[in-house]
Amino acid sequence: MAETKETTVMGKLVSLAKRRGFVYQSSEIYGGTGSVWDYGPLGVELKRNLRERWWRAMVHQRDDIEGLDAAILMHPRVWEASGHVAGFTDPLVECRNCHRRFRADAPELAGGQCPVCGSRDSFTEPRMFNLMFRTFMGPVEDEAATVYLRPETAQGIYVNFLNVFNASRQKIPFGIAQIGKAFRNEITPGNFIFRTREFEQAEMQYFVEPGTDEQWLEYWKDQRMTWVRDLGIRAENLRFHEHTQEELAHYAKRAYDIQYRFEFGWQEFEGIHNRTDFDLSRHQEYSGKKLEYFDQASQRRYVPYIIETSAGIDRTLLVVLADAYHEEDVEGETRVVLRLNPALAPIKAAVFPLVRKDGMPEIAEKIHATLRAAALPSFYDDGGSIGRRYRRQDEAGTPWCVTVDGQSTQDGTVTIRDRDSLSQIRVPAERIVAWVTEQATKPYAPLPAIP
Amino acid sequence: MAETKETTVMGKLVSLAKRRGFVYQSSEIYGGTGSVWDYGPLGVELKRNLRERWWRAMVHQRDDIEGLDAAILMHPRVWEASGHVAGFTDPLVECRNCHRRFRADAPELAGGQCPVCGSRDSFTEPRMFNLMFRTFMGPVEDEAATVYLRPETAQGIYVNFLNVFNASRQKIPFGIAQIGKAFRNEITPGNFIFRTREFEQAEMQYFVEPGTDEQWLEYWKDQRMTWVRDLGIRAENLRFHEHTQEELAHYAKRAYDIQYRFEFGWQEFEGIHNRTDFDLSRHQEYSGKKLEYFDQASQRRYVPYIIETSAGIDRTLLVVLADAYHEEDVEGETRVVLRLNPALAPIKAAVFPLVRKDGMPEIAEKIHATLRAAALPSFYDDGGSIGRRYRRQDEAGTPWCVTVDGQSTQDGTVTIRDRDSLSQIRVPAERIVAWVTEQATKPYAPLPAIP
Repeated sequence: MAETKETTVMGKLVSLAKRRGFVYQSSEIYGGTGSVWDYGPLGVELKRNLRERWWRAMVHQRDDIEGLDAAILMHPRVWEASGHVAGFTDPLVECRNCHRRFRADAPELAGGQCPVCGSRDSFTEPRMFNLMFRTFMGPVEDEAATVYLRPETAQGIYVNFLNVFNASRQKIPFGIAQIGKAFRNEITPGNFIFRTREFEQAEMQYFVEPGTDEQWLEYWKDQRMTWVRDLGIRAENLRFHEHTQEELAHYAKRAYDIQYRFEFGWQEFEGIHNRTDFDLSRHQEYSGKKLEYFDQASQRRYVPYIIETSAGIDRTLLVVLADAYHEEDVEGETRVVLRLNPALAPIKAAVFPLVRKDGMPEIAEKIHATLRAAALPSFYDDGGSIGRRYRRQDEAGTPWCVTVDGQSTQDGTVTIRDRDSLSQIRVPAERIVAWVTEQATKPYAPLPAIP
Repeated sequence: MAETKETTVMGKLVSLAKRRGFVYQSSEIYGGTGSVWDYGPLGVELKRNLRERWWRAMVHQRDDIEGLDAAILMHPRVWEASGHVAGFTDPLVECRNCHRRFRADAPELAGGQCPVCGSRDSFTEPRMFNLMFRTFMGPVEDEAATVYLRPETAQGIYVNFLNVFNASRQKIPFGIAQIGKAFRNEITPGNFIFRTREFEQAEMQYFVEPGTDEQWLEYWKDQRMTWVRDLGIRAENLRFHEHTQEELAHYAKRAYDIQYRFEFGWQEFEGIHNRTDFDLSRHQEYSGKKLEYFDQASQRRYVPYIIETSAGIDRTLLVVLADAYHEEDVEGETRVVLRLNPALAPIKAAVFPLVRKDGMPEIAEKIHATLRAAALPSFYDDGGSIGRRYRRQDEAGTPWCVTVDGQSTQDGTVTIRDRDSLSQIRVPAERIVAWVTEQATKPYAPLPAIP
C-alpha cells in the first residue's frame, strides 16, 4: 500500500509522514511556508514522547537539575550580550541582474552563474546577514521597539540563573533544563525537518566550578550518548565529532556533536559544549548585575562555568524516523515498517476484530476502551483484510496488533502480533493492559532488518 | 517568612511567584520585557501538569479527537482569510506634543490630558493598529517577505483539516486539539500573566454537521466547565458569560466565556464558540482548495461547522494560583498556603528528617529517592525548624510533608502532615509511594479557608 515514486529514504519519509499524519508542510493549502512544518496526529505524539522522555531523564529523575520555561521574546540587550546581534550572521550576495539573494558559500554559485536568471559574474560583494527574526513590540515599528525571536533557548536560562538559584536552594554543580521553540532565518534551509526556520530545542545548562569543567563535559558527553542509544538508535549510525579549533564557537572551549549517519551524510542533532564563563560574564557586564556564586565550603566567589547539552527535538525526531524506516520483502510483497522503540511509538497497540460479526467487535471494542483508560494509546480498526490492517500499523510504527478471532469468543484469548519479529502469541484478553505496559517499558534493542 | 508589603492578592501572588520560582518577569536583569513572563522550576511543573491534564481529557481519553502541533509561522494569506489582517486591530491615538501612543479607549485619557507630558486636547484622530507581530522570512525585509506570529493557534487546525481527516480516518463529528504559543502586540497588557504579549493556548476545534452545531455547543460548554471545576476551582468563583450581539466576533453565531472572579473583576479565561462554517469557507475561498466533507450515510456534501473550545494556559494557571492562595492565622502566625489540587501541585511530597542525626537523614533520603523513582516529584529539606519547613512547602502548594522522627528509626513509620487540614497521620515508610499515588489521583474538593 505504501507505493511512492521516491527513491531516497528522505523522500520516502516525507511521503509517509504526510500520508500517515506525522508531519505536514506548514500552510500546505496555500502552497506552504518556507521550511516550516506542522506535526500531525502521530507526529505530535512521537514528539510528546521524546519531550517527556528527555524531561524525565534530565529533570524528574535528578535532584541536581531544575526545569524552566522562559519566553521566546526577550529583552534585545540579551542578544547584544550573547554576541548574536554582532555575530550571528551568514554571508549573503545579491545577483546584480535579478536581485535574488544567496548564501555566498552556496554550492550552486560555484559556477559564477546566477542559478535564477543565469547571468554571469554579476554578484555583489558578500555582506553579513543576521539570522535572527526581528519584530517590533508596541505600536511603533522603530529601532527602540525592535525585539528578536530567540535563536536559541539557552539565553533564557542564563538570565534566570540567579532567580532559579535563589528559589531552588541548589548548590553548584547544578543544572537548569528547558524545552522550547527557537527561530533562525536560514537562507538555505532543507532536508525535511532537519534544517528549518522554526524548531524546538531541549537544552540543559549545567553550572560548575571552574577547573571541574572538563570532567563535567566528559560526564555529560557520556550521559547524552547513552540517552540517545536508549532511544533505540543503532550504534553504527551514531558517532561523536569533536569540533576543531576552526569549528569552535566564540564562546566554546571544547565541543562535541552527536552525529547521525543520514543518507545525506553524518550530521549533528545534539551538541555538548564547554561554554566556559563566557555567557554569565557577558550578562554580568551588559546588565550590571552580579552573576557570581559564593561557595560556602571553599569560601571562593566565582562566575560559574557552563556545560551545555543542546538537542534539537525535530532533528532527534528525524533521527528516530530515519533509523526506524525499513522496507522488507515479506511473502513477496514490500512491507514498509517503522521500527520505533515502543516507548516512543504514537500508538502502542491496535485492536482488530477479525470480522465484523459473531461477537468479535464487542470484545475488540472493550479491549480498545480498556487500553485507552489505562493511558495506552490504542487504535481500533475493522476495515479491510487483516494483512492490510497490519501494514497500516507497520507504517505507523505500532509495535503490537491485537486480533480478536473465533477462538477469542470461546476461550477469551486474543493474538498479539509483534511488528518486528512478525511472531504471534495468544494472551488472555484481560491480560492485554498488563502485557502491553510491561513490554512498552522494557529497554528496546532494534532488530536488524530482515534480509 | 512570607512578609510582603503588597495589599492586593495579585500583588502578593506576583511576589510569591518570584520568591518560590513559579513566575519571573522575562529578562528581569535587563529591566524586563514588556508584559512577557518566564516560568520557573515550580511554574513549569504546574504548567506541564495543566497541559497534560488537558491533553489527557481532550485527546488521549477520547476516540473522536486527534492531536496536532502546527507551527507559529504560517503563510501570510492565512491571516487574510481569517480576517486578522483587516480586522484584528485596536484604535490608537498619538499625543501631538510628545508623540506617545495610547489605546483610544484607555481610561487614563478620559481627562483629555496626555498621561505622559500633560498637554491637553492634543491627540490625533484614532487610527486602527494591527495587533499581530510581523516579521520577515528570508533575507529581504519587504512586503513580500512579511509573515506574522500567529495571534491564535486555531488557524493551524483549520488549514490542516483535510490532512488530519485523510490520515486519521475520523468521521464527523470529530475534533482536532492543539497546545501552543500565540502572540498579540497588546497596547495595554497587564494583570500579571492575565494579559500578556506572548501566551499559550489550548484549543480544540470540533467539526460538526450544520444543524447539529447548537447541541454540540451545549455539550462542549458542559464538558469544559466540568473540566475546570475538576481542577479544584471553587464553584462560586466560576460563571458563564454569554456574548451579547455586540460582543460576538465576526465569525461567531453564539459564544460563551468561562469567567473567574478575580480581584479585578469577572474575567474570561476560556471561551466556547460556535464559529459556524466561517473559517473553512474562507480558507476554501482564499486557497482555492475544497474543504468539504462528504457524509456517506446521508449522501450530503457540506462545509462543516466548527465548535471551538479555546483556553488560555497562562490564564488558567493564574486562576489556579488565585483560587489556591490563602492567608490564614495559625497559632498566632500568618500562614500563606497554596491549596493546589494535588494532581496539579509541582511537588507532591516533601521529605524531612526531624534532625540531621540518629539515622533520620538516611531513612528520609531513601524515601525521597523512592518517590522520585516512582515519578512523584519530591523535595528533600533538612534546613531549619520543622515549622519553617512546613511553611515553605505551604507556599509551594505541596500537599504532603513526610517527617522522619525518632519513632521512625524504631518502628519504620513516618508522619504525613496534610497541607489543608493540618492533620497528621503515621504511615509505614514503605507505604509512602502507594499512599501518595492514591491520594494524588483522587478528585480534589478544596476546603473552605480556616476562619
